[in-house]
Amino acid sequence: MTSYTSREKYLSDLSARAVLPDGFLASTVSLEFLPGEKPSANPYKMNLSLILSEKETPYFAAMFTKNRFPGAPVLIGRERLKNEKTRGVFINNKISNVCTPNGKENALELLDELGKELSSPGSLFFPASTGIIGWGLPVSEMKGKLPELVRGLKGGSLLDVAKAIMTTDSYPKARRAECEGGCITGIAKGAGMIEPNLATMLVFILTDLYAPKDSLQEALSFCSRGSFNRISIDSDQSTSDTVILLSSGKRKITDMSIFNNALSEVCEGLATDIVRNGEGTAHVIRASVTGNCKIALLEGIGKAIVNSPLVKTAIFGNDPNVGRIVSSIGDFLGNNDMDIDTKELAITMGGIEIFSKNSFRLDTGSEKRLSDYLVHAKLTDTKQKGYPAHDLFVDIDVRFGKSGETAVVYGSDLSYDYVKENADYRT
Amino acid sequence: MTSYTSREKYLSDLSARAVLPDGFLASTVSLEFLPGEKPSANPYKMNLSLILSEKETPYFAAMFTKNRFPGAPVLIGRERLKNEKTRGVFINNKISNVCTPNGKENALELLDELGKELSSPGSLFFPASTGIIGWGLPVSEMKGKLPELVRGLKGGSLLDVAKAIMTTDSYPKARRAECEGGCITGIAKGAGMIEPNLATMLVFILTDLYAPKDSLQEALSFCSRGSFNRISIDSDQSTSDTVILLSSGKRKITDMSIFNNALSEVCEGLATDIVRNGEGTAHVIRASVTGNCKIALLEGIGKAIVNSPLVKTAIFGNDPNVGRIVSSIGDFLGNNDMDIDTKELAITMGGIEIFSKNSFRLDTGSEKRLSDYLVHAKLTDTKQKGYPAHDLFVDIDVRFGKSGETAVVYGSDLSYDYVKENADYRT
Repeated sequence: MTSYTSREKYLSDLSARAVLPDGFLASTVSLEFLPGEKPSANPYKMNLSLILSEKETPYFAAMFTKNRFPGAPVLIGRERLKNEKTRGVFINNKISNVCTPNGKENALELLDELGKELSSPGSLFFPASTGIIGWGLPVSEMKGKLPELVRGLKGGSLLDVAKAIMTTDSYPKARRAECEGGCITGIAKGAGMIEPNLATMLVFILTDLYAPKDSLQEALSFCSRGSFNRISIDSDQSTSDTVILLSSGKRKITDMSIFNNALSEVCEGLATDIVRNGEGTAHVIRASVTGNCKIALLEGIGKAIVNSPLVKTAIFGNDPNVGRIVSSIGDFLGNNDMDIDTKELAITMGGIEIFSKNSFRLDTGSEKRLSDYLVHAKLTDTKQKGYPAHDLFVDIDVRFGKSGETAVVYGSDLSYDYVKENADYRT
Repeated sequence: MTSYTSREKYLSDLSARAVLPDGFLASTVSLEFLPGEKPSANPYKMNLSLILSEKETPYFAAMFTKNRFPGAPVLIGRERLKNEKTRGVFINNKISNVCTPNGKENALELLDELGKELSSPGSLFFPASTGIIGWGLPVSEMKGKLPELVRGLKGGSLLDVAKAIMTTDSYPKARRAECEGGCITGIAKGAGMIEPNLATMLVFILTDLYAPKDSLQEALSFCSRGSFNRISIDSDQSTSDTVILLSSGKRKITDMSIFNNALSEVCEGLATDIVRNGEGTAHVIRASVTGNCKIALLEGIGKAIVNSPLVKTAIFGNDPNVGRIVSSIGDFLGNNDMDIDTKELAITMGGIEIFSKNSFRLDTGSEKRLSDYLVHAKLTDTKQKGYPAHDLFVDIDVRFGKSGETAVVYGSDLSYDYVKENADYRT
């Protein structure tokens, strides 16, 4: 367990993680604008960020949302993933640039203008946007800030970018792993709308290690499946989710499995960071489901648990209403006509037995211990403090028999603050 | 639009609807108990209810939850649906009798004891329970009240039963339709955990009209599909959902289609009542989805909209964040790999165009009108008042092209009160 007692301590730890690998530069600037879509006396604030490979690089990979109404940056990114080379990523927060009349044209115009500033083709950049859906980008205000953004490019740290890409996040997120003489550094923004298959989640992973593009894509797909695709805050998959992996091509990977392990560590760390900083998250739930059946079914059961509003509200209230866990599993199995033997089902929470042999195993003693366990795992005042107090989970262990594969799924509880943030997001 | 200004006015309207059809008697009693599972200085209160056909009847039908961990009453009810005759239903609130070590034995023991009081086989009764999952029934306290329950049987009204079966409901619910010289009266309890495929929803529909058992079952299945299976409060399907239809067999149905229409009216009325009285519901969302594709897909899209926590919280906040509606549709289509043409997609809310030709159609004027529309449709203080202020909906109309079938799905918004009630349910 890691615990933090101040924002300074958290940021100091983060600073050590957010090291920019060899061969990359980064920069951020802020601007103000008045949205045409919403009358407002006070201007809105937007941050622009740029992550730049010093040279054009053929080593990159990306994953995008499966949502059928993707944002313009995702549409452009999918095309540019086919390119032979890339130079970097241009990111804005505040407006997601989804389904607006000239969304794609606006994004392309900005990238071309950025290319001019860098004397590089605009087509070599990935765009990434996050924020309100349905509003158009303030193109002229953004263009006006590009010279300053380019002037600010420097190496060393990704921490400022990790801060600049936040929307309703309460703190920046970064993870780092070293392997094969190089390093992998990842930053992420998440908060609400996070669900498997990626959500309003932007993740940028940089490394000086390289392998052919296909191998990097395979590694990213594999590691995403066990991390970003197994988290859920509110079961909505956003229109803008993007994970981009860029390599500066300094050091050749000699053993892909070693690289995969390090990449998994970074991805899993960022994925749990995103859940922990979900909108209003007060408990991070880790559901581990084991059985002799397809991994997709085990994942489905795990997601059914962490997505059940009734399970989520009970955990928020530190109430061991474990009946709702069993109900959510039964609901999923019933709706999906799954062929699985439930006679051997055994469930524990925090190691305490709650269900076996088709009956609840509860008494006043175990209910009290469960409640104490939930109180202990609670995150308090993350929003005000601006850092996570600890990295504890609420562990729910579900076993259909004694052997089989295991899927681990992460989710958040459902709190007053979740409702508050999402009811008032744009006001 | 129907609106109410006082609880008295609502109950007086309800009283006129909750008329007991010919050939039925009803009764309720209360009792207090100390649950073994939870240390408590103050006793808990439980209501027992009995709906009795004056004579054994061969005319009945029922639908049960598809949850894989059904309560003991559902297990018993499924068996008894195969019986040739029935006599009535014995109902308790407060404890759902789900997955407890002796749940089934306890329920059977109570029905046998009830049978003795009525000089009728206990096997002729359906049990129904709703409330906390995982606790055992206070059998001896319940048995002690059976003589009083039987002594209280009388004809005339179902209103007392409609009140006695409530858990977190804020008001009783009843609907009535007349046809073919007879009548259909239905009562329901719902509140939280309501989702398609039935939820902690108990519905009892009584009629003096009869048709062969198979025809009644077919009618109930058909009407449930367009009503109880198209509502969702929190996407959880409970372990105890039950709809029972009993006929006293006084008047033969001559035209099943007329009966079906009347039964649909009762079922749709009760289904929307359940959503309107959902835990913390401040807006009732009615999503109507039209397209040239399978009805199950249209239903799925409707449910994706009304189950999206982000759509639900935005509507709670009277915030026309319509991007979330499009995102929830895109999420569903992307995850289910649905083959549907989205080019023609057009969406309105309250008749106001919000999306067409792949772009949002919003300006400051339409955002203001949408916000006003949401404020107008808000239900306020239902819990304190103990009645619904009105029966308005938030209408979301989704069309994939100009023709096709239509699925209408109902859901609630997501409010602070939802979290509060579900985080504190047992405390």
